[in-house]
Amino acid sequence: MHNADVRMRGFSERISVARFESVLRDRCAPLPAETVPLAQAAGRVLAAAAVSPVDVPAFDRSAMDGYALRSEETFGAGPYNPLTFRVVGEVTPGRTFERAIVPGEAVRIMTGAPLPPGADAVLMAEYTSEQNGIMTATEAVSPRKHVGRAGEDIRRGQEVLPAGRALRPQDLGVLASIGQGQVSVLRRPAVTLLITGDELLKPGEQPVGARIVDSNSVMLAALIARDGGTVAALQHLPDRRETIAQALREAPGDLIVTTGGTSVGVEDHAPTLVAELGELLVHGVAMRPSAPTGFGLVGGRPVFLLPGNPVSCLAAYDFFVRLGLRRLAGRDEAWPYRPVTRRLRSRIVSQIGRVDYVRVRLEGEEADLLATSGASILSSTSLAGGFVVVPEGSEGLAAGDVATVWLYD
Amino acid sequence: MHNADVRMRGFSERISVARFESVLRDRCAPLPAETVPLAQAAGRVLAAAAVSPVDVPAFDRSAMDGYALRSEETFGAGPYNPLTFRVVGEVTPGRTFERAIVPGEAVRIMTGAPLPPGADAVLMAEYTSEQNGIMTATEAVSPRKHVGRAGEDIRRGQEVLPAGRALRPQDLGVLASIGQGQVSVLRRPAVTLLITGDELLKPGEQPVGARIVDSNSVMLAALIARDGGTVAALQHLPDRRETIAQALREAPGDLIVTTGGTSVGVEDHAPTLVAELGELLVHGVAMRPSAPTGFGLVGGRPVFLLPGNPVSCLAAYDFFVRLGLRRLAGRDEAWPYRPVTRRLRSRIVSQIGRVDYVRVRLEGEEADLLATSGASILSSTSLAGGFVVVPEGSEGLAAGDVATVWLYD
Repeated sequence: MHNADVRMRGFSERISVARFESVLRDRCAPLPAETVPLAQAAGRVLAAAAVSPVDVPAFDRSAMDGYALRSEETFGAGPYNPLTFRVVGEVTPGRTFERAIVPGEAVRIMTGAPLPPGADAVLMAEYTSEQNGIMTATEAVSPRKHVGRAGEDIRRGQEVLPAGRALRPQDLGVLASIGQGQVSVLRRPAVTLLITGDELLKPGEQPVGARIVDSNSVMLAALIARDGGTVAALQHLPDRRETIAQALREAPGDLIVTTGGTSVGVEDHAPTLVAELGELLVHGVAMRPSAPTGFGLVGGRPVFLLPGNPVSCLAAYDFFVRLGLRRLAGRDEAWPYRPVTRRLRSRIVSQIGRVDYVRVRLEGEEADLLATSGASILSSTSLAGGFVVVPEGSEGLAAGDVATVWLYD
Repeated sequence: MHNADVRMRGFSERISVARFESVLRDRCAPLPAETVPLAQAAGRVLAAAAVSPVDVPAFDRSAMDGYALRSEETFGAGPYNPLTFRVVGEVTPGRTFERAIVPGEAVRIMTGAPLPPGADAVLMAEYTSEQNGIMTATEAVSPRKHVGRAGEDIRRGQEVLPAGRALRPQDLGVLASIGQGQVSVLRRPAVTLLITGDELLKPGEQPVGARIVDSNSVMLAALIARDGGTVAALQHLPDRRETIAQALREAPGDLIVTTGGTSVGVEDHAPTLVAELGELLVHGVAMRPSAPTGFGLVGGRPVFLLPGNPVSCLAAYDFFVRLGLRRLAGRDEAWPYRPVTRRLRSRIVSQIGRVDYVRVRLEGEEADLLATSGASILSSTSLAGGFVVVPEGSEGLAAGDVATVWLYD
């Protein structure tokens, strides 16, 4: 054990959550673009504004099933004054009527079909009857009635979606409609997960003796996918300095997330290694749980050091990796949790200067603290409906206070 | 054109949205289970309750870095009354200390390591110093302090997750920790998408002449993925009765979604085909847009007939396919949109007996109707921040009313 490092001596000072967030905003910028097929672009972030090269539709079209005709010829038509037209053809979507219609003529037309030349309106089928090539109209229509103009959806040169847009399902439809089959989006951050701990078995192994199963890797992989990232590599590593050093140097991807060995114990190699191999910018956060969280750069890439305790790992991910990852992905920073307000059944104790992350159980309109609140009790985050955050400037919340609960679902 | 069917004659009656929903609840039940690796189970729905075969952890463990010792020997220790212990070893996570400690002894211990026999508490490193094998304690600890008991996270026989749970990231961690490497979840509904329309080009093609690009397939595929489904097959079909009939009969998967040809025009084959090949349960809904929506069964499988107009298609998906698909997937029925309340800038006109789906633009704390509100204007759903639903029992909303807006993002 060295006396020169922090191990076994506790953190000399803890950075505030707000200061940590500001470090992350400085150090995590959106990744470059790549081109993907439209079918794979849902939720991806548009790299540049999408501008339409065409009018959509490119032609005037019918908005109803009925008859295209010259509207002025219907004036005066009604149930007691039916007017008749010669039906000279039919036009369906994708087809065109070959000539201009002349007075007295109507063309049967379907929704979405191009308006025949000479026609200026569509009379709905409901107000007509047809027999032996003669259509009888019992309603008048005004000019342009039930006609969608060329470019009514999108005009040539129009910006249809701004840069930075997280693509909605309907945005993909809009891009398809202007002729795009692929789209330039920001690259998804690729994450190397380094799970450290001699005591850890891999997911799928049976817990035995003094060993426990790593639960963080499966949880983190799902959280990373939620925030727009991918897992480039996953390694389970023993608490050996040289092994962890090598893994940090050789990790593929855009950022590294480690779990375990982030505190001040003799086996806590990660912080000193990041300091040696690059720059350790944060170590120790004024937060409960997750105080032993760190952040730095190795080879210019962000490295997040998360506690091995699974609740701390979850909270540290949601506070810090979520922010860094979503910035790399070009996504908005907000938690993807839904906030609701609930009355607290019991008080939550905190301290000025510290942020608390508190799992709560939801019971009707109330929220209650979970009895088992230790940072090692992962099952508490499955039992909990969500969590309450006590901000830095608060000493806690009283029973009966109304608090914002962030729903896990 | 037959006079016996509804085509070109309008809908004789329209089913209410509530009645349609009730038909869907009757006809769409959860699919059978399948087993998937834990790493692929995020968001999947648990087929049966998960019960732990083990205690987690299987041993008493330290919750801190420090020294394991007999707590009664620390009583009275303080900054002005330091007490000393012989350090007889070290125990790290995954290892065990080989013998019971005796009075006067302490064992250096790391967070997560098993407590040595004989020890009953852990003194935090912060309250100690160590030199030449002697640890000096300046704080007392009570029995069981900083000790996590065997089973403190999960007890053998405990139900850790209920059947029907949509698995959260941390739930995957819980399942890993009890030794599960795979999990039995409900099968994801596989959807055949049949996109009909002579006028349609495929996504990726350039719009030309009287033809437009199909935008519904890419939008629907993303919506289906959002609601837990997969696309089993995607076909673009001409408006030919025999072709559509064959596609309906031969479609793979658990349900079929068609777009286009659902109304009462001469080219609207889908409703009559479903009636002939199976059972047409719904055709025509008291809703705007999306009135020409249908639902039935072919070969026992649900078939949704969605309008081809993209806004109608989106609304009909979100009202009806969403419900049916999420029921097949065993997921909760709720819209995955976040509701917010906003004051309306302008009035929304509806009718008693009809549900209206109205896209709105968000401006600060207010919501305003979009000027371009036609059902064919897909770009309006990209411009809109969300939508307001005017319920069946309402004639509309007045300017200044506070309405619930469902956010598209």
